[in-house]
Amino acid sequence: MSPKPLNPHPDRLFPADPKTRDITRELYEAVKDLPIISPHGHVPVEWLADDIPFSDPTSLLLTPDHYTNRMLHGAAGVELSELGVPVGSDMTPDQSRNAFRLLCENWKYLRGTPVQFWFESEFHDVFGVKVRPSAETADQIYDQIQECIDQPEYRPRALYKRFNIEALATTDDPCDDLAKHQQLVDDPDWDGRVIPTFRPDAYLEPARAGWVALTNKLGEVAGVDVSTYAGNVEAMRVRRQYFKDHGAVSTDHSHADARCERLSDEEAERLYQSALKGNISTAEGNALRRHMVNDQARMAVDDGLVMTLHPAVVRNHDPYAFEKYGADVGGDVPHAVEFSRALQPILSEYGNHENFQMVVFTMDETTYSRELAPLAGYYRGLYVGAPWWFIDETDAIMRYRRAVTGYAGFYKTSGFIDDTRAFCSIPARHDVSRRVDSAFLGSLVAEHRLQMGEALETAIDLVTTQPRKVFKL
Amino acid sequence: MSPKPLNPHPDRLFPADPKTRDITRELYEAVKDLPIISPHGHVPVEWLADDIPFSDPTSLLLTPDHYTNRMLHGAAGVELSELGVPVGSDMTPDQSRNAFRLLCENWKYLRGTPVQFWFESEFHDVFGVKVRPSAETADQIYDQIQECIDQPEYRPRALYKRFNIEALATTDDPCDDLAKHQQLVDDPDWDGRVIPTFRPDAYLEPARAGWVALTNKLGEVAGVDVSTYAGNVEAMRVRRQYFKDHGAVSTDHSHADARCERLSDEEAERLYQSALKGNISTAEGNALRRHMVNDQARMAVDDGLVMTLHPAVVRNHDPYAFEKYGADVGGDVPHAVEFSRALQPILSEYGNHENFQMVVFTMDETTYSRELAPLAGYYRGLYVGAPWWFIDETDAIMRYRRAVTGYAGFYKTSGFIDDTRAFCSIPARHDVSRRVDSAFLGSLVAEHRLQMGEALETAIDLVTTQPRKVFKL
Amino acid sequence: MSPKPLNPHPDRLFPADPKTRDITRELYEAVKDLPIISPHGHVPVEWLADDIPFSDPTSLLLTPDHYTNRMLHGAAGVELSELGVPVGSDMTPDQSRNAFRLLCENWKYLRGTPVQFWFESEFHDVFGVKVRPSAETADQIYDQIQECIDQPEYRPRALYKRFNIEALATTDDPCDDLAKHQQLVDDPDWDGRVIPTFRPDAYLEPARAGWVALTNKLGEVAGVDVSTYAGNVEAMRVRRQYFKDHGAVSTDHSHADARCERLSDEEAERLYQSALKGNISTAEGNALRRHMVNDQARMAVDDGLVMTLHPAVVRNHDPYAFEKYGADVGGDVPHAVEFSRALQPILSEYGNHENFQMVVFTMDETTYSRELAPLAGYYRGLYVGAPWWFIDETDAIMRYRRAVTGYAGFYKTSGFIDDTRAFCSIPARHDVSRRVDSAFLGSLVAEHRLQMGEALETAIDLVTTQPRKVFKL
Repeated sequence: MSPKPLNPHPDRLFPADPKTRDITRELYEAVKDLPIISPHGHVPVEWLADDIPFSDPTSLLLTPDHYTNRMLHGAAGVELSELGVPVGSDMTPDQSRNAFRLLCENWKYLRGTPVQFWFESEFHDVFGVKVRPSAETADQIYDQIQECIDQPEYRPRALYKRFNIEALATTDDPCDDLAKHQQLVDDPDWDGRVIPTFRPDAYLEPARAGWVALTNKLGEVAGVDVSTYAGNVEAMRVRRQYFKDHGAVSTDHSHADARCERLSDEEAERLYQSALKGNISTAEGNALRRHMVNDQARMAVDDGLVMTLHPAVVRNHDPYAFEKYGADVGGDVPHAVEFSRALQPILSEYGNHENFQMVVFTMDETTYSRELAPLAGYYRGLYVGAPWWFIDETDAIMRYRRAVTGYAGFYKTSGFIDDTRAFCSIPARHDVSRRVDSAFLGSLVAEHRLQMGEALETAIDLVTTQPRKVFKL
Repeated sequence: MSPKPLNPHPDRLFPADPKTRDITRELYEAVKDLPIISPHGHVPVEWLADDIPFSDPTSLLLTPDHYTNRMLHGAAGVELSELGVPVGSDMTPDQSRNAFRLLCENWKYLRGTPVQFWFESEFHDVFGVKVRPSAETADQIYDQIQECIDQPEYRPRALYKRFNIEALATTDDPCDDLAKHQQLVDDPDWDGRVIPTFRPDAYLEPARAGWVALTNKLGEVAGVDVSTYAGNVEAMRVRRQYFKDHGAVSTDHSHADARCERLSDEEAERLYQSALKGNISTAEGNALRRHMVNDQARMAVDDGLVMTLHPAVVRNHDPYAFEKYGADVGGDVPHAVEFSRALQPILSEYGNHENFQMVVFTMDETTYSRELAPLAGYYRGLYVGAPWWFIDETDAIMRYRRAVTGYAGFYKTSGFIDDTRAFCSIPARHDVSRRVDSAFLGSLVAEHRLQMGEALETAIDLVTTQPRKVFKL
Repeated sequence: MSPKPLNPHPDRLFPADPKTRDITRELYEAVKDLPIISPHGHVPVEWLADDIPFSDPTSLLLTPDHYTNRMLHGAAGVELSELGVPVGSDMTPDQSRNAFRLLCENWKYLRGTPVQFWFESEFHDVFGVKVRPSAETADQIYDQIQECIDQPEYRPRALYKRFNIEALATTDDPCDDLAKHQQLVDDPDWDGRVIPTFRPDAYLEPARAGWVALTNKLGEVAGVDVSTYAGNVEAMRVRRQYFKDHGAVSTDHSHADARCERLSDEEAERLYQSALKGNISTAEGNALRRHMVNDQARMAVDDGLVMTLHPAVVRNHDPYAFEKYGADVGGDVPHAVEFSRALQPILSEYGNHENFQMVVFTMDETTYSRELAPLAGYYRGLYVGAPWWFIDETDAIMRYRRAVTGYAGFYKTSGFIDDTRAFCSIPARHDVSRRVDSAFLGSLVAEHRLQMGEALETAIDLVTTQPRKVFKL
């Protein structure tokens, strides 16, 4: 039996109703080739700074993609180590090929998932694969991709250009010297835009193991005495400015909840001193963390960095996998979150300030119509972030639009965020968003809820002016 | 460039699928011209009692409509004062015209929202506007509406008739003398029905500032000694009866939660005495409030007034706007709510009593399939209220039907509630509901889940017999 | 007027869009006649063991079906006693006929509900009824069904065969001797498969009235000294093995929450001793219960019984109905539930063990995309259960697929569960699931998200290999 052809349909993700599909097609046509703006993600800056050729299909496409690893683990019982996890493990060529086979032979477990869409698009559009993945075709596909990445046209910078990326943000430690970002800026052969993002999570958790060392390092790097809470704030201010000077436009925050109540100065100092001595309780650590997050918002009013939030994940849910493979291997699980009361301290103080902008991402869809659309509909600086992580997929994107448009419209939403480590999946991920937004707008036109001209302008705004405005790009 | 025409499509909000759309059209045709029953809203009774001509488009259509104000504030950065907020601010003709311009020139921010639908319908159907709102057409539309409202055909009573309103409820303070309602009843030239609603929220929050004064006023107006808790209940009983005698059919309640546990008589008295002395804690205030809400239900069994609930809103989320503009200007935000356990004390005691009826509204959609449909499916007196406030829009109404029909059917739902201060938007708001209910019923017929005859009868029941039964009209 | 014909449409529940409907039809065609696997339900084993003829339409179809009773009570104000509740009440032929009339004359209250679908399918397909239920046709339908069930072709075993049931699970007390199950196994004339399910809920609630007696009974039946906690665990182990020896494949658990933290051995023993003495607090009872649930999971790793969970229901919400009619008469109401943190103790310990399988059912749909799909996508042993009880209906099944497929795919879902006491509704219930799954898969194909071959294989897997694998059948 000859292998089944891989031939992604030009209308995929479009509504089946012929009239709505025609409108959707027209809208999609207007946005599909526009440049990609990626204001939040996890691609290693080294890839572009050093433009190192990729080594093999598995370490490029599979190992770093925890979306895929977790499904092969959960549905097919594959051990993460067989897929090269953690990133950086040495794999022999045989092991690499075998990992890729595991992906292809378990293809049925990906049916209906975004992972299937991304891979099929990537395989076809980026690497010219013409057969559908299966046990039989695994080696053929592996070889074809290997052949591609051995060519100069498949080195990171060439792909960046081919993917038509306008801006790409990385996520970085506050103490990072951003040398690789600077190297790109200084490189006369590079005219792309790769910007850092300030992510201080670990520095804002005073009850976590290792926080004292991190804080001391922060003080050293910033050249600021951090023996008082005021010193800590000043060190943060210095590093935020350093990031801004290196092109950063936003700071990124993910904690167990979205709370941000301020403490009195005295109480903050008292807890800070306890934390430095290593004897702060979990409850006190949370209280101080919420105060510190509030201070990040205060600083944002001054330096204008956009603040992005995506709280409420049980990190490393499976402690055995964490111990064996480390963080970010797929064992994270969302939980319910509350925003209406939690964000009041920040929003009521800074939410209408002209210099303040905040984007809230969530994996708790219940908050869209109940909390986030009402909040963003009122506060000038607040935007509802696109579906993130476990809800970054066709149906959930549609639910997002249907939940937030009524009371926040289109212009209080963030534009798409790919949030990915998987560089080659970036075009496919943005393509899903463009297709589904076109489908949603198309349905509004088909149901006479919006004029075609309005829909067309909106579709274009959502991938151009809107993300530029929201992220101050 | 000549302005774009405003020409609302007769099929708007109908499903795109041709077969489903045809069925939907037929269902809608049967209900679109039926009288409007509006058992809960906020139109000032004076407008109808005194039939005063409206002064200008802004104070009629824009200033009192916090749905619109908040979106112009949140999306376009418009100051609320520029829109004439708070209601009653003196605006010069220039200011009024300028406010209306702000609305029109920011029209794109309303795309896909119900506010757009309501305004476009109102402009076209009520005032005969033929051009779409924009910076260019703002003055022209303003002038045309001004010209209309200077005519006698646009005075409140004339519009009431033209809107084909069968009954319209206002929302009133328990101490209100209802003189304006009486004036209407006594007016031989008036044959409409405008009824008061008893809303005792502030009188049931013993830990809130001002509660003692309110309670004393209640005692005076009722002519009852309120120095004991029993006296308070008696005063409430007297005022409920007064409202009933003036045509009221329901009482309306909105607190932070839906709880209603009873206290022992001794404990209630003890807390009541603390409250009168002004030294009741927040927790005790909540406990007494829940007991008082329970007593409202007890009284409802006696006097038969329908009890409506819509809990769980953070009122005045933005304290600066509250200080500057007062309440009800758009800074309210819903939060999650629990009903299954919270309502057990009332439902298990009174929920099957033939004289007791309760309607629960929510902005937490998660409760529809999980709590409200199961509760209303079992308790005779309980009805699931139509989508309210931030979820009063096309997609959310559709989600409501899809969430509650399975286990509560159509006949344990409340019928549509407009809940509006914006008098001229009433027909458009009811029209949305009729269109979406027709679309939902149409989809059931198209999917062979319901016979056409069943759907037709149901569509008509939902705007006639059902609201009359639920609200005892 | 002649009665309206009852003629269920072959395309019912299929999407209206012609292209999608055609694909759906083709998928449904492939699964509609496949055998029924029913791994969780409440049909009395006696019916099949003793093959006793059913007595009358009401006691067969109406009285035991709390789905229907509650709606007639809630929407039409029918007293439960008029419907023969509780099961086993003596009804005269007139009372039985009258109960059936109440069902038929209140038919409109069931519009759009699954109860309507089930009855119309059952009436038509099982009993050959050709007229739609109404006040006028009630007696005619009653007589026709009575005539049927007086025939041998309508005795339980004949229907079991006619329904094409491959396996049917009952739900049983841990102390049950399973004699009726054994009787079936031993019966040379019986070649069906009716298996017990181990449901120890009441034995795991040490603070509930009656627990001591239950525990003593458990010890006796198991022949194990239960005066220590270790003894209790051993007795459980013995009884689980007894069930497994009698064909059981799963244990079933429903508590107020999903928590399962372990206690230290000392603490567990201390609480157990308090419980035996009858002086354990509610909080301590919950703590011990969570530990005991965890021990059930430990035992599941050893004996391989699949663990099913469906927590978070307020049982007997209406205490008056409970007092008058007993449990399971319709007065149960779901509430919100949390899984991500609650299940961590079990999942992180046993969730990847090859012998451990758990299915989580919920009525809190918010957990599908937020918690259950992410958890099941990662843990090998976890499956997302089909919509259960108050969300077992067309739209909710569609929402389930749209919420879980993105990050759990199809192969981490449980297959359909009918959970019913209403034997004759089993085919109709499974039919709804097959129709809606076909519709969902059909929409994926129509939107070019899945190839037809993939959809076809998936549709078949979902009713054959998948439930067999999940329930180890």
